[in-house]
Amino acid sequence: MYNFKYFTPTKVLFGKGTEEQVGSLVKEQNCKKVLIHYGMGSVVRSGLLDKVKNALDSENIPWVELGGAVPNPRLSLVYEGIELAKKEGVDFILAVGGGSALDSAKAIGYGVYNEGDVWDFYDRKKQATGCVPIGVVLTMAATGSEMSNSSAITKEEGWIKRGYSSDYGRPVFAIMNPELTMTLPDYQTACGCTDILMHTMERYFVSGDTMEMTDTIAEALMRTVIKYSLILEKEPDNYEARAEIMWAGSLSHNGLTGCGASGVDFATHGLEHELGGLYDVAHGAGLAALWGSWARYVYRDCLHRFYRFATQVMGVRDEGSKEEIALKGIEATEDFFRKIHMPTTMTELGIQPTEEEMELMAHKCSIASGGKKGSAKVLVEEDMLAIYKMAML
Amino acid sequence: MYNFKYFTPTKVLFGKGTEEQVGSLVKEQNCKKVLIHYGMGSVVRSGLLDKVKNALDSENIPWVELGGAVPNPRLSLVYEGIELAKKEGVDFILAVGGGSALDSAKAIGYGVYNEGDVWDFYDRKKQATGCVPIGVVLTMAATGSEMSNSSAITKEEGWIKRGYSSDYGRPVFAIMNPELTMTLPDYQTACGCTDILMHTMERYFVSGDTMEMTDTIAEALMRTVIKYSLILEKEPDNYEARAEIMWAGSLSHNGLTGCGASGVDFATHGLEHELGGLYDVAHGAGLAALWGSWARYVYRDCLHRFYRFATQVMGVRDEGSKEEIALKGIEATEDFFRKIHMPTTMTELGIQPTEEEMELMAHKCSIASGGKKGSAKVLVEEDMLAIYKMAML
Repeated sequence: MYNFKYFTPTKVLFGKGTEEQVGSLVKEQNCKKVLIHYGMGSVVRSGLLDKVKNALDSENIPWVELGGAVPNPRLSLVYEGIELAKKEGVDFILAVGGGSALDSAKAIGYGVYNEGDVWDFYDRKKQATGCVPIGVVLTMAATGSEMSNSSAITKEEGWIKRGYSSDYGRPVFAIMNPELTMTLPDYQTACGCTDILMHTMERYFVSGDTMEMTDTIAEALMRTVIKYSLILEKEPDNYEARAEIMWAGSLSHNGLTGCGASGVDFATHGLEHELGGLYDVAHGAGLAALWGSWARYVYRDCLHRFYRFATQVMGVRDEGSKEEIALKGIEATEDFFRKIHMPTTMTELGIQPTEEEMELMAHKCSIASGGKKGSAKVLVEEDMLAIYKMAML
Repeated sequence: MYNFKYFTPTKVLFGKGTEEQVGSLVKEQNCKKVLIHYGMGSVVRSGLLDKVKNALDSENIPWVELGGAVPNPRLSLVYEGIELAKKEGVDFILAVGGGSALDSAKAIGYGVYNEGDVWDFYDRKKQATGCVPIGVVLTMAATGSEMSNSSAITKEEGWIKRGYSSDYGRPVFAIMNPELTMTLPDYQTACGCTDILMHTMERYFVSGDTMEMTDTIAEALMRTVIKYSLILEKEPDNYEARAEIMWAGSLSHNGLTGCGASGVDFATHGLEHELGGLYDVAHGAGLAALWGSWARYVYRDCLHRFYRFATQVMGVRDEGSKEEIALKGIEATEDFFRKIHMPTTMTELGIQPTEEEMELMAHKCSIASGGKKGSAKVLVEEDMLAIYKMAML
């Protein structure tokens, strides 16, 4: 077991109608002006955005707005937000939407608070010393960004997607009404479920020591996500299932499922970022398309964890060799992805990179991770390329 | 499933040697003067107190000290601490010790921040509007006070023990080195394990709706606590076991294991507070002495939860009627208490209240809870008396 830090300061209000409290929550921040940051039209069409604006008006809190955050949110919009926020004297950012609006809001927050180019944080060149405080009214269960220290931004020049993590970026509050996720297309719901599952898997598949308290929570979370993802596939309006998935999404990425472990893997995330950057695929679908290939490439180096995962999460019977059991666990996971209509290869994802493009992705992924990535098995550039090639089959 | 708030702002540093960081953590608070509050001699004898003082000196942080917090911490010492802190201009309180020192520190914090008599908060007469910020170097795994909003204080006049909960009292940081718990007497270790188990049980045994994500985490936690309590009974110096129990202690009472549930029970805690107040018994032992009687008194009204507990936590085979299975789960829990040398009756606890004393306790417990207590079954005064009488057998 390893030492760890656990810090999840986000105040979560969870359940039906909690968005009604957005005005009083922002009021508590004693801010001068709010930037309301959102994505595309869905929060406009649903009336949520107007509800939020009215709530701020009722509390006499001045605000400005910036929409347009897209999946794999863009650096150019972040720059626009930083300029707007500085000009308007914004000292609080309220994201209304999913992980894209929220990650974009975090980047704007870093850019306003710190001198210099905000991309330098994402480009591993420097560390933030603070962030404009962020709140969120969440409309999608997926990235866990509402309680996490993470965000990911895509730079259009070269289509480079990079993540940055800092505790300064953890939202001060998160309003989470599962009903707000019910209007999502089924594909987006399944992508979200996949991302949630993966955030714990990325912490679970490590070669070194772990902690039983953490492992058993992680296993409970993964079983819960799988169970309710399958229910949502049949019943997208099932409130209980929406709520289970939404809360699992926050717990999966706030640090809880990694406490005491020897590290994290996050190789699949790293590999997917290159797909997201180059081909603009949905993040969750990209993860599903790569995971099986990653798992088959690394499982022998982390056999005890793949064995445990198979028996404790995927319900594989403890019969046969550990290697056989581990493989059955990988197959069962891919079967799950298929059941929720997620791809298990890049071809199913709808992309067919050339050899050169795969080499480029492996090279960029290697650079983004400082040369090495992963804990289940430490991957270098040639491993990354091998996994991309496997995922073409 | 019910709406919920989740708010656990405490920054946790967990693992070996983390107490070395106490100086820099206090420094982050930008405080003028610290009150170091501790219990009896153990933190003096171990050298921990000197280490903490030296760390503050190294950071040039002025401090004053107050020792003497005892198990079931006393109101008179709280008053003394409030007076000292006000006189000295204290604006941060650092508890060094277990739940007693920390609960006492919380009460001092409320008393310094708010006008009037601090006992009024514990006596259900008013609500705090703030608290002097608290940090803790924890030396015992038990109360979960290091991440919780709770504290319990005993008023010597009438020997009344009362709890008070407010988010203002959640510590800003908690330093948790499991090694610091290794010097505890075995009895105190077992009492702590029992208290930890109970904090989740008090949330788990509810008659209304719950949430699967929460239930499965709660079950994972209870299984983990039982597993490592039994290891500690044999190997008190086992670091892994100390760490599993210590982290479970924080998670068990920070709110995580109650999210989305219809309420909490906490009847066993309420009944035990009267034992603690009147007979000054160790809290964990008092809980163990009462739990089986409480469970047998209420289980028919909450059969689905006792059935689930038996099969998912206590390993009872799913054979026979639900009532039979539920009873086997209760028996298995009592067997567990016996294995870690905890009492399962008041007689085994070493107290034999008279009929009149039991009536007094039931009456005080009823008053403390506003007439009704519990969720598995709502208890009124006569129920409380019946449970005390059952626990005499």
